[in-house]
Amino acid sequence: MPTITFEPGHHRIQVPVGTRLDEAAVMAGVRIDAQCGGQGTCGRCALLAVSGKVDAKSSKALSREQVRAGYILACRSLAGATDLVIQLPEPVPEASNAPGAADDTLERVRPELLPDPPQCGSLVTALELSVPQPGSADARPDVDRLQIAVQEATGSTEPVQVSLPVLRGLASALRQDDGRVRVLMHQEDRQRCLLHVGAPSSDHSLYGVAVDLGTTSISVQLVSLDTGAVVATVSDYNDQTGCGADIISRINYARRPGHLQELRQRGLQTINRLISQAAERRNLEPSSVAGATIAGNTTMIHLLLGLSPEYIRVEPYTPTALRFPDLEAHAVGLDIMPAAPVFIAAGAGSYVGGDITAGLLCTEMATKTEKVSLFIDIGTNGELVVGNGEFLVACACSAGPAFEGSGIACGMRATAGAIESVHVDESTGQAHCRTIDAQPAAGICGSGMISLLAALFRTGWLDAGGRLARERRSAAIRVDGRHGSYRLVEAQQTQKGQAVMIDEREIQSVLRAKAAIYSASAMVLEQLGLGFGDLEHVYIGGGFGRSLEVESAVTIGLLPDLPRATFQFLGNASLAGAYMALVSAEHRRLLMNLAARMTYLELNTDPAYMDHYTAALFLPHTDPSRFPSVAAGSAGGGR
Amino acid sequence: MPTITFEPGHHRIQVPVGTRLDEAAVMAGVRIDAQCGGQGTCGRCALLAVSGKVDAKSSKALSREQVRAGYILACRSLAGATDLVIQLPEPVPEASNAPGAADDTLERVRPELLPDPPQCGSLVTALELSVPQPGSADARPDVDRLQIAVQEATGSTEPVQVSLPVLRGLASALRQDDGRVRVLMHQEDRQRCLLHVGAPSSDHSLYGVAVDLGTTSISVQLVSLDTGAVVATVSDYNDQTGCGADIISRINYARRPGHLQELRQRGLQTINRLISQAAERRNLEPSSVAGATIAGNTTMIHLLLGLSPEYIRVEPYTPTALRFPDLEAHAVGLDIMPAAPVFIAAGAGSYVGGDITAGLLCTEMATKTEKVSLFIDIGTNGELVVGNGEFLVACACSAGPAFEGSGIACGMRATAGAIESVHVDESTGQAHCRTIDAQPAAGICGSGMISLLAALFRTGWLDAGGRLARERRSAAIRVDGRHGSYRLVEAQQTQKGQAVMIDEREIQSVLRAKAAIYSASAMVLEQLGLGFGDLEHVYIGGGFGRSLEVESAVTIGLLPDLPRATFQFLGNASLAGAYMALVSAEHRRLLMNLAARMTYLELNTDPAYMDHYTAALFLPHTDPSRFPSVAAGSAGGGR
Repeated sequence: MPTITFEPGHHRIQVPVGTRLDEAAVMAGVRIDAQCGGQGTCGRCALLAVSGKVDAKSSKALSREQVRAGYILACRSLAGATDLVIQLPEPVPEASNAPGAADDTLERVRPELLPDPPQCGSLVTALELSVPQPGSADARPDVDRLQIAVQEATGSTEPVQVSLPVLRGLASALRQDDGRVRVLMHQEDRQRCLLHVGAPSSDHSLYGVAVDLGTTSISVQLVSLDTGAVVATVSDYNDQTGCGADIISRINYARRPGHLQELRQRGLQTINRLISQAAERRNLEPSSVAGATIAGNTTMIHLLLGLSPEYIRVEPYTPTALRFPDLEAHAVGLDIMPAAPVFIAAGAGSYVGGDITAGLLCTEMATKTEKVSLFIDIGTNGELVVGNGEFLVACACSAGPAFEGSGIACGMRATAGAIESVHVDESTGQAHCRTIDAQPAAGICGSGMISLLAALFRTGWLDAGGRLARERRSAAIRVDGRHGSYRLVEAQQTQKGQAVMIDEREIQSVLRAKAAIYSASAMVLEQLGLGFGDLEHVYIGGGFGRSLEVESAVTIGLLPDLPRATFQFLGNASLAGAYMALVSAEHRRLLMNLAARMTYLELNTDPAYMDHYTAALFLPHTDPSRFPSVAAGSAGGGR
Repeated sequence: MPTITFEPGHHRIQVPVGTRLDEAAVMAGVRIDAQCGGQGTCGRCALLAVSGKVDAKSSKALSREQVRAGYILACRSLAGATDLVIQLPEPVPEASNAPGAADDTLERVRPELLPDPPQCGSLVTALELSVPQPGSADARPDVDRLQIAVQEATGSTEPVQVSLPVLRGLASALRQDDGRVRVLMHQEDRQRCLLHVGAPSSDHSLYGVAVDLGTTSISVQLVSLDTGAVVATVSDYNDQTGCGADIISRINYARRPGHLQELRQRGLQTINRLISQAAERRNLEPSSVAGATIAGNTTMIHLLLGLSPEYIRVEPYTPTALRFPDLEAHAVGLDIMPAAPVFIAAGAGSYVGGDITAGLLCTEMATKTEKVSLFIDIGTNGELVVGNGEFLVACACSAGPAFEGSGIACGMRATAGAIESVHVDESTGQAHCRTIDAQPAAGICGSGMISLLAALFRTGWLDAGGRLARERRSAAIRVDGRHGSYRLVEAQQTQKGQAVMIDEREIQSVLRAKAAIYSASAMVLEQLGLGFGDLEHVYIGGGFGRSLEVESAVTIGLLPDLPRATFQFLGNASLAGAYMALVSAEHRRLLMNLAARMTYLELNTDPAYMDHYTAALFLPHTDPSRFPSVAAGSAGGGR
């Protein structure tokens, strides 16, 4: 069998002749970017074959220059009979929040919407009890004496369910400290379960995790269930991204034998890694985490639970399930306390999942009865909800991962070193960038991309079609063949000594993303007989950095041209909602109700959507009357 | 490391110097008889060290002759530095019912007590459904459409619980045959669970197993849940017997690290082997078995579930639990359908377990309100219940495994070739034996032992103390040192060419067994202010063969001297009760009620018990007035 060596890193793997190189990379533990899920169309898995024989099929995704230089597509190339050395492209920078970094997820939510721990009913509650020792007058079984003690302590006569693993440790737990024990309980509907019976705790610590399971990024909050305090927040790219950049690619990828299982493992591996990182910061064992809430889109939840997502992709877009009973962590595959309950936020449709219902908890729109508001969640999938206390209509569109910094060579998540705001000098076309935590630039995040495009457009360095003003000659603009590219930061000023660049193809993918979201918003309002002017609030959720600029978002036509006070940025509303569900029984009920109330509107099947979308592919829009303030503001620089 | 070879069979194992030989035997897959659980007191693990060095401690359990001949106790001997060859004693013959052998378990139960399948509510029920395919007008999730279809088919509005494994296969199951599926359901209290959703069945076959989990023997019935028919019955020795012959030895054995887990695995291995044998007879996969009921004593259930039995052995004799919610087969460790429910018969006390509550289902005593009856279950543990429709008092005694053919060199279970009835020629002292299925003798079972002792006693060849009449000279009697032995069948007439023998020590263990049961019966009645004469019925359960002779049982003083019509033999009542619970919801409820109604009486702590017991160690009893018919009958032959 030939040996394949992936550089840099010298990852080696022996594979049978004929193995696909993307599969060999997975076996070698090497991550390869692949937005199309191995279809050979996106060109993201291009590799340089340095030496050795490869059986590579041609693909339109590679330019003639790339082919000449020795580039091949991993997903279209098979290992030959000889050993092979492969040069990987520079990896997308990865980052977690730095230790101790402030987590502002909850600060963006109005305080009156947040639960009031610890009285509000955490997913798991602890109880310290004294269970009488058995004696000649009371030889009742251990579990019966425990039951009575729990009923006396809680004032409830309902029996508590005790699982086999708890029974297994019961005899010794009840005899270790003269019957003094700490029990962990979980209540769902009327049923109460005992999760754990152990020694009384000295520090009363009880933790849970809230998880935002995104297509591109996953975020985890470690939360004290006693106080409701968020003690650590970490996030990272979803390890599934190598199997396709968006939901549709993942669903396609899952169709091949074993791939659903692989996607499940990759998602779990990311979540478990993040939980372990968060726990490490507090010197906790992940096994002491006693509960989890997870908010994710319907496809991500299907992949996490090992449910086939196949029929989410084809008409009439039917998922296996949208709501789930609380599951046990070991059944889901989370490496926390095995019996820990996992609450999964219920979804409203195949393309409006539990991340959206969770996000709605951060708004007042579903409880107010008067004016209508709009909730937009900007992720790899864009989701929208329009409504008030009387109705909620939801729809979805595919934005792609550009706003999450993925699928862009210099893109990155909104972590330290990411460019989040850009000023462009009108005369030279040079950029002045602000990075998160004022670190040397490492790349550009979603809010930086919006700021950049708006700045280039305002100063006339970018036209309405997304083309750079090459004819104006700026040192920042380079033209290579047909494609122009723009340099934000020179190599010597960056973290890794590589320039931060963006090219016109990448600008197009940002335009497609913003067009998808704007046109979906316009469509859903139109179908309800409403316009943007009818909205009281526009709530914006998503993994943006702390400083998404409203002006810039309106300038590029991502957000409608409304009075700026209409907009409220929620940040990662899905994570905030998962947090609320973790610490409050009332919020769990509210969330389930929201899911049941939402009406799902299918845009894909509406032919008018494509017209809306195409019209929105320009900066800010083909119809300037929709953006009067942009037209006024750009009178100076734009043409 | 020295290599140890066990002969016959040439089982070899390498072990570190200092390894105990009984543990080496387990590692080599060799079964060693050990009644005391490795305490060095029972002498049953005596082995012949043919060659090599052994570090053997002395033990009173070995006679001087045995030591001189090279015998050692496996549990008191450590492997030395050299290789070792060990000669094992001839194994206890093992047997299952021959294929096609008639199973009369249910025939002994009065028909009006038996459930009336299939309408009576099997543990698992099947339902054939048509679930509408999703369409543009109905894009509800798969599980929601299924729920509605189940509710329509059953006329119930309660939601059905659907587990993760069922969800995982749902998308394809609902689309394979245009929505026609067969669902398997389980109902416990008000909760209904879906176990399985699959293709409609062509033969409508749905199976379950009823298990009698005994200390010495395990029996399994494979039952059609559609018709209630028993389609196969198999039984075997419990693989745990190598870890101690009775409950107390097992509990002692379980105290060492890892041993509880070992006992659990040995019990599971026996059950799973039997299930697989039974399924094979019907060409079924064990994984198609959809439910199980298990009746066993409290210790056996603790070992099966991996619960520590430690406190069952010490005052105040407290188990972890006596009643269990229905468990899932995979959690228990049964190799049947992973989600299959396992119903465990509830027990009444540490020494009156679910085998007794199950057995009571085979009697009318708990429903009649007038006269009092007695239920005796004769196994390695003897259990008794006295009562009527108003009260039920239960107690237990330790009989040892003699009646199950274990702990007796030529003992065997009541299967083909077992001597079940013996006639003794008064003048020659020679035996004429009847075997089960008229096969050449392979050994002697419990009913044979009772028949033999009664026959020897009646003809004067055995005295009231259990000593053979050596002075009368019979070719069947041999005296070796202090111990006399009796030959039932000559070597050339047996299956294996080895004589069927019983010696005086073995006779003593039968006497101890019968004394334990008789004296416990007498005690419990005495404590209730009753006598044997007050009993309407004496029900007898246990693993006896088809032909336990009342006369013989009374002759040896196992059963009280009552009118013979008082006795009703139930055979394996525990298995019959497990069967009833498997096929009938009403019987499951009845069983749980019986467990709750029983009052447990502790005999161990009553000093009067030892006097009763000692007096009952004679044939039939030290007080002949208790057995007037025996005194009259033996006037001719006995002295």
